[in-house]
Amino acid sequence: MIEAIVSGEILKTISRAIVALVSECRIHFLNKGLHSRAVDPSNVAMVIVDVPKESMESYRVDEEKVIGVDMNRIFEISKTMTVKDLVELSVQDETNLRIKFGAVEYNLALIDPSAIRKEPKIPELNLPAKIVLDAKEFKRAISASEKISENVILRSDKNSFTIEAKGDVEKITFTMTGSELIEFNGGEARSMFSLDYLKEFCKIAGAGDLLTIYLGTNYPGRFSFELVGGKVRVEYILAPRVES
Amino acid sequence: MIEAIVSGEILKTISRAIVALVSECRIHFLNKGLHSRAVDPSNVAMVIVDVPKESMESYRVDEEKVIGVDMNRIFEISKTMTVKDLVELSVQDETNLRIKFGAVEYNLALIDPSAIRKEPKIPELNLPAKIVLDAKEFKRAISASEKISENVILRSDKNSFTIEAKGDVEKITFTMTGSELIEFNGGEARSMFSLDYLKEFCKIAGAGDLLTIYLGTNYPGRFSFELVGGKVRVEYILAPRVES
Amino acid sequence: MIEAIVSGEILKTISRAIVALVSECRIHFLNKGLHSRAVDPSNVAMVIVDVPKESMESYRVDEEKVIGVDMNRIFEISKTMTVKDLVELSVQDETNLRIKFGAVEYNLALIDPSAIRKEPKIPELNLPAKIVLDAKEFKRAISASEKISENVILRSDKNSFTIEAKGDVEKITFTMTGSELIEFNGGEARSMFSLDYLKEFCKIAGAGDLLTIYLGTNYPGRFSFELVGGKVRVEYILAPRVES
Repeated sequence: MIEAIVSGEILKTISRAIVALVSECRIHFLNKGLHSRAVDPSNVAMVIVDVPKESMESYRVDEEKVIGVDMNRIFEISKTMTVKDLVELSVQDETNLRIKFGAVEYNLALIDPSAIRKEPKIPELNLPAKIVLDAKEFKRAISASEKISENVILRSDKNSFTIEAKGDVEKITFTMTGSELIEFNGGEARSMFSLDYLKEFCKIAGAGDLLTIYLGTNYPGRFSFELVGGKVRVEYILAPRVES
Repeated sequence: MIEAIVSGEILKTISRAIVALVSECRIHFLNKGLHSRAVDPSNVAMVIVDVPKESMESYRVDEEKVIGVDMNRIFEISKTMTVKDLVELSVQDETNLRIKFGAVEYNLALIDPSAIRKEPKIPELNLPAKIVLDAKEFKRAISASEKISENVILRSDKNSFTIEAKGDVEKITFTMTGSELIEFNGGEARSMFSLDYLKEFCKIAGAGDLLTIYLGTNYPGRFSFELVGGKVRVEYILAPRVES
Repeated sequence: MIEAIVSGEILKTISRAIVALVSECRIHFLNKGLHSRAVDPSNVAMVIVDVPKESMESYRVDEEKVIGVDMNRIFEISKTMTVKDLVELSVQDETNLRIKFGAVEYNLALIDPSAIRKEPKIPELNLPAKIVLDAKEFKRAISASEKISENVILRSDKNSFTIEAKGDVEKITFTMTGSELIEFNGGEARSMFSLDYLKEFCKIAGAGDLLTIYLGTNYPGRFSFELVGGKVRVEYILAPRVES
């Protein structure tokens, strides 16, 4: 038997984080908390979601379990919740996830996890640059960049972290030096990424959320968001684009 | 001569309530206040609107009168009012409704009431179940339900009031017991209704508005809203759908 | 060398004001401040924008200069600014405008001013009526009018200023007497204007902004807005329509 009580805000956040990449996914009810990960259909990005049990109002897992769900459905229903709603998730048999909030009880048929695309291994990446900044700053750089281009180059050197986008007649450079960043190791890195993906990733972040970026050169990047006051961690791993 | 002064909020509310079902309608200037009712083109729903004279800033009717109007036009103009605007309605001859607010005077040609579809009689309905709840709660159940279905079943028994919607792989049940409802008589009832209509009805309701529902079994339901702090009553009568 | 620091609010306002009529335009960096003017492609309306140097945080012009820009691009980027951002505009050579705000540096290739449509002379207009009112009031009259018509007649006589729109079955009259207006000279005037243009003009105005209208009879009108707490002046000159 599985029973978890989370805030509406947490369910809104994790469902939005996942539907950015896939519709159907597995959810792991682990002893230490909720976990989910998935790769998008074009194999360009991976999402990893963790909600430790300490972030929930209540969490009870008799035995660790994996279920398969249509996360789009949960995302739609989460829109009718308020952030402060207490939402009870429970799995009582092999066929059904029950979501209760206020006077509403929502029941969703489970999908056989084996029918969902194989779960990715989290790759081991050797990424020399680490950058920590307010997610809102990154979001703004991405919003501005997508006005003029489809890609951005993320660069790090010993002095600063830079985001660069180029249009036909215009160019945007977002630069933060080590002292302007929350944390920065000055590692050397340079990779190009698709703005379509980065824009989707940013949708989950609000003011005050922390974003940690790990970068290499022509290598996948890791974008790790601390959300809902640190209660939820969402990490995206994104394949680089080849610079032409 | 007819002259009524109402708040912008009242005019916004009653025009929206009526255009949910029809465009053209009759308005009765009765001694006791404003009254209008109409049936939608497919004969599925009726709307009944009453604004007692006590709810208006001022009301003067020399002789009771019926006029015909294109309510869509009034609804459009009401969008340019603020809720606090004092709006003066006046009918000085047989041809024209004048609506004044701030520096704006709006004049609308009347429609011969006999050219508007015959007004419905309000049916006498013997409805055993009576449920009173915050309209916001109902609105939320309807929003959630329409994510997964086109119809809902409304049920009442001696213990509780229930709204149920079923999709292909999911189900929503909204349940409130007698003690959670503002008023409840425990009458037995069960009818299915179209969510398209219920969703339209809910648009007029805000936080704190009261909704009284009267239900029977496979029988029309009455949805009576107390709006604008109790100043306006809008009632919808909705035909049931046949359960298959 | 040219360097100006303005608030995000100012850049948002002037770029919106100009893109209402044209995409590409000239910007003059004069000793007394920024200036731009342009005529729309159909020769119906002119926009004149002035930001005196006193309205800027800082302003340095070694030599007066004209540049050509794609204002649509600047307008798009201005949407990613907040009103309180300090925005640095600089032109260091003949080819590039640099716009810095927060950590973002945006560079836009300049257009040869001679490749942009010839700048209009500001016509000398002998306009007998002068009307000063809250731009919000005008905006509301225009919003209401465009619900029913494509044109409005603006009239002034010794008693009042009137805006009139006529639909097939309805009519709107907005009337303010001299004592209700902020300033009014009672001059005689009557001209008809396109609501499409007036609606665009009003988009730049917020609560508390002043609008001065100068009118003649079947003659162009001047619509002069004091914006951003009086820091920016945007004037539109609009050709009249012929009444049929």
